[in-house]
Parts: sequence; C-alpha cells; structure tokens
Amino acid sequence: MNDETTTPVAVIGLGLMGQALAGALLEAGHPTTVWNRTATKADQLVAAGARLAPTVGDALQAASLTIICVTDYQAVHELFDASDVKPAGTTLVNLTSGDSAQARAAAQWAEQRGARYLDGAIMAIPSAIGTAEAVILHSGPQSDFEAHKSTLDALGTVTYLGADHGLASLYDVAGLAMMWSVLNGWLQGTALLRTAGVDAATYTPFARQIAAVVTEWLPGYAEQIDSGSFPAEVSALETDVRAMAHLIEESEAVGVNADLPKLIKAMADRAIAAGHGAEQYPVLIEEFGTPRDD
Amino acid sequence: MNDETTTPVAVIGLGLMGQALAGALLEAGHPTTVWNRTATKADQLVAAGARLAPTVGDALQAASLTIICVTDYQAVHELFDASDVKPAGTTLVNLTSGDSAQARAAAQWAEQRGARYLDGAIMAIPSAIGTAEAVILHSGPQSDFEAHKSTLDALGTVTYLGADHGLASLYDVAGLAMMWSVLNGWLQGTALLRTAGVDAATYTPFARQIAAVVTEWLPGYAEQIDSGSFPAEVSALETDVRAMAHLIEESEAVGVNADLPKLIKAMADRAIAAGHGAEQYPVLIEEFGTPRDD
Repeated sequence: MNDETTTPVAVIGLGLMGQALAGALLEAGHPTTVWNRTATKADQLVAAGARLAPTVGDALQAASLTIICVTDYQAVHELFDASDVKPAGTTLVNLTSGDSAQARAAAQWAEQRGARYLDGAIMAIPSAIGTAEAVILHSGPQSDFEAHKSTLDALGTVTYLGADHGLASLYDVAGLAMMWSVLNGWLQGTALLRTAGVDAATYTPFARQIAAVVTEWLPGYAEQIDSGSFPAEVSALETDVRAMAHLIEESEAVGVNADLPKLIKAMADRAIAAGHGAEQYPVLIEEFGTPRDD
Repeated sequence: MNDETTTPVAVIGLGLMGQALAGALLEAGHPTTVWNRTATKADQLVAAGARLAPTVGDALQAASLTIICVTDYQAVHELFDASDVKPAGTTLVNLTSGDSAQARAAAQWAEQRGARYLDGAIMAIPSAIGTAEAVILHSGPQSDFEAHKSTLDALGTVTYLGADHGLASLYDVAGLAMMWSVLNGWLQGTALLRTAGVDAATYTPFARQIAAVVTEWLPGYAEQIDSGSFPAEVSALETDVRAMAHLIEESEAVGVNADLPKLIKAMADRAIAAGHGAEQYPVLIEEFGTPRDD
C-alpha cells in the first residue's frame, strides 16, 4: 500500500492548487482519480492520465489517500455529507484553507464516520507544487502521516507537526505573520533610507544582516518565554522604548509612515504599564498573547 | 598619525557607553584623554591610564581624534560652543544618539568651525564595545573615515555608509525597525502556537526557517522597488490580503492580540485602495514612504 508509485489517490477540488497537486501525484506515477464541481477543469489532468470520477463518493472508493483542496471548510462539509460518501476506507488529507477550530471540527466529523483524517496547510503557490520549495504542513495522528508520507512527498517538502489537528493552520498563520513582519521591517527601513537617496538594493544587505543576527537570538529568547522569566541580560524594555520613540521621531521627521514604529512602541508601552519595564523584550509575549479590549 | 597604537584620542562624555569607548581605546594603546561633566566618572579610566582633562577645549588640544558620546545633540552644542573649544585640529566622531537632521546640522556647525566631522551610531550595548559584535556606523567624508579607521577599529566592527552625515542615524533606526519587526513576527507566531500548547522552543526553528527564506527574497524585491515596477511574479496583493484576513481571524479566534495582523492588512488595504491590488508586495513601499493623514 505504501509503494509510492502504486498508491491509488484521489484529489477533490481542481482549482489552480488542486490541479497542481493532482498533476504532481500523476507525475509521480500514482493512479489518480479527480473530481471537481465543474468537470471541465479536469480536462488537462484526464489527458495526462487521471480518471474523472462522477461523484465525490465514487472518487473515494478506489483511493487509499484522498487529498481535499476546495474553497473552504463549508464546501468540504457539503461535499462529504453526500449520502454516497463512505470515507472509512481512505485517509483524508484536507489541504483546504481554514482555521485551527475548523480543522479540529473536521477531524471530529471524520472520526464519527470512521475515517482517518490529517489536516494540512500549503505554504506555497501552485507553480511550486512538486518541488522542494513547496512546504506542506500536516497535523493529526502520526501513524496516518507516516503511512502516507512517501506518497505525500510527491507534493513538496512535507512536514509533520503533531497530533493536534489545529497545528497545521496555526503554524501556517504564524509563518505568515513572520513573513509579513520581515517584509514590513525591511520596507520601513527602505522607506527611511530612500529619503536620503539610498536605493533599496544598497540598503538590503544591511537589513538582511540585522535579520540574521536577530534570528540567532530567538532560541535564547524562547527559553525565557518557556521558563516565564525575563531577566534583562542585554537590555531592559524601559531602555528599548527610548529607541522606539527615536524610530517614530525619525520616521515622522523625514516624512515616512510611522504606523509600524508606533505599533512597536505601543506593544512595549503596554508591557511597561503592566510592570515589565525592567525585564527583557520577550516579556512582550504576555501582550501578544492577550486580546486587546479597547 | 595613523599608527594605531599612537594616535592621541579624546573621549567626551563618560556615561556607560562613553566609559566603554574610552576603555577600548586605552586597551588598544592609544594615549586617551577623557572629559565628563561629573569628573568622578573618569576615576576607573584614569586608574587605567587615561588623562582627565579639565575642560572640553583642553581635551581636544592634543587629540587627533575626538569621540563624542553625550546625552543628546543639544548637549553636544552646549559643550562645543564653549569659548575655549577649538575643534579645527581634531576629527570629531559624534556617536551621540540623534536623528539624521541633527547629524546634518552638527556637520554644518563643525564645518563652519573648520573641523572635520563624522557622525556615527552605535548598534550595541556598552559591554560589547571593543568586540566584533559591536557594530558602529559612520557617515560623513570618506577620507576622514579612512584616516581614522585603524583607530576606530578598536571600538568594534566599524562601517562606513556614505558622505551624507544623516546616514548613520537612518541606518540605525532602519536596523531597529527590522530588529523589532522580526521579534514581533516571532512573538505573534509564538502566541498563536502557545494556544495549542506548543512551547516557544518548539516553534522557534520554524520561525527562523521562514525568516531565512523571506530574507532571500529581499534582493529581488529591492530590484522591484528600485525599478518602480511590481509585476506579481509570485503573488498579487489582492490574493495576499485574503491570507492576512485569515491571520486576523485565527488570532482573534484563539484569543491572541490581533494588532500586528491588523496593521499588516491595513497597509496592504491602503495599497489596494491606491490601485495596486494586481501588483506584488514590494509595491507597499509607496505606503511605507508616505505619512498617513488620519
């Protein structure tokens, strides 16, 4: 069953991403059945050797692994609640975009029907599917992941996160937060330097250097968070905020947007107001972990 | 004059940072004169071989290089406007914290007095001074930097940025923006994962991996900014904002602070409102480069 070239698979949902997933599985030699509400989206895949199933229930029958990639979790439930769908014989891998609560609810739904279920998140664009660049996160029972890892490997760099079905979605959005934060930090600096006629290409190596140094601090900062103790080994928050004020002032003085600098300082100000001024930056986890009332 | 062990130097201002700077210069064998408003702060340095000058003017007389590290630029001007200060014979390196406009004004002030002037910014804590870890940025005439680089090397990793005296301050705050952005992106993800019981040490390698991948995109993104052309080679902004909305929803659903996700989306929303929805992320430079009215 785990011979990677002979595992029969199904792909439900043939948007750009679903087509890429089915294409990668076909390319790897798997007998591939596909289904899509609009059947014409399967034309290219059928020409490449896929079998088009008339219903979701039919698609699942021969598949030991079923990849789901549709619009949202509501669509998943609508499709899989059809009377002919018998998911107990297949392992569902749901790569549909959704949040951690939806993933956990879908896992419960699958469990009630005797189906094996993994939730996943794709950190890639369709054209990267099938290459190592495409990172695909999975969460759910480890044995179900291990049983199908050799097949899933055809899709990209597949990663297992843990038994909690919500993890794939949480890591996905956490990664997005890091991605946009790095980009925005770089854009803020680029905007500042452009006021002095420094182009982005000139500034960028400096920004990359700073990012590389700061990411080296993270394991030590993580230890502070996990131990709940934040001694100011390098710098205290009440010292940091003076430099944050300076970043705001410089941004405003040279006429660039100061929203990001102001957010940085606002988070630190709240931590100081909560009595953490003499502690180190990672103590801000308490602010990041708490919804704001106002 | 450039023999690194015999250049006579002066250090004006002996706070924690000034003391560290003077200490590193003494350590490197330079005849070092120091001055501070409160003379007792010089005690340790004098014990280590420094000469305590009675006035700023006196400190400058024998120094071919004068490091200034006082509270702010107002203090610089007050000290150096004293009648006995004749800065024409020395090269001033002002490492006092300030903004780019203050640095340019101080350069003009120095020029009017026939003094050579470099502005600098220290990206380090006092205990790192004298090690490669201490990055010290300099801007101003390149020949003045080159003439004293071998002496300045005693302070840390010294970097020359360009002739515009404002550059050291701008690179400094740009680097701070990158630093806090990386830390905050990591904290947002850490807060999200903690809701599922994942500790910071477990999440952190994933965050570092994302940051490393994203920083590799920056040179290509810089090219887009410098050419003013933002084709959606990987993803269009109007696609990105759907994932940003998802980040906000997940943050709110699991009960963590959503201010950072909301700022990320607000910047993108403004770029889309300005007609850039079909373009790629670096087009946000226009939003970052423009102060917000409201």
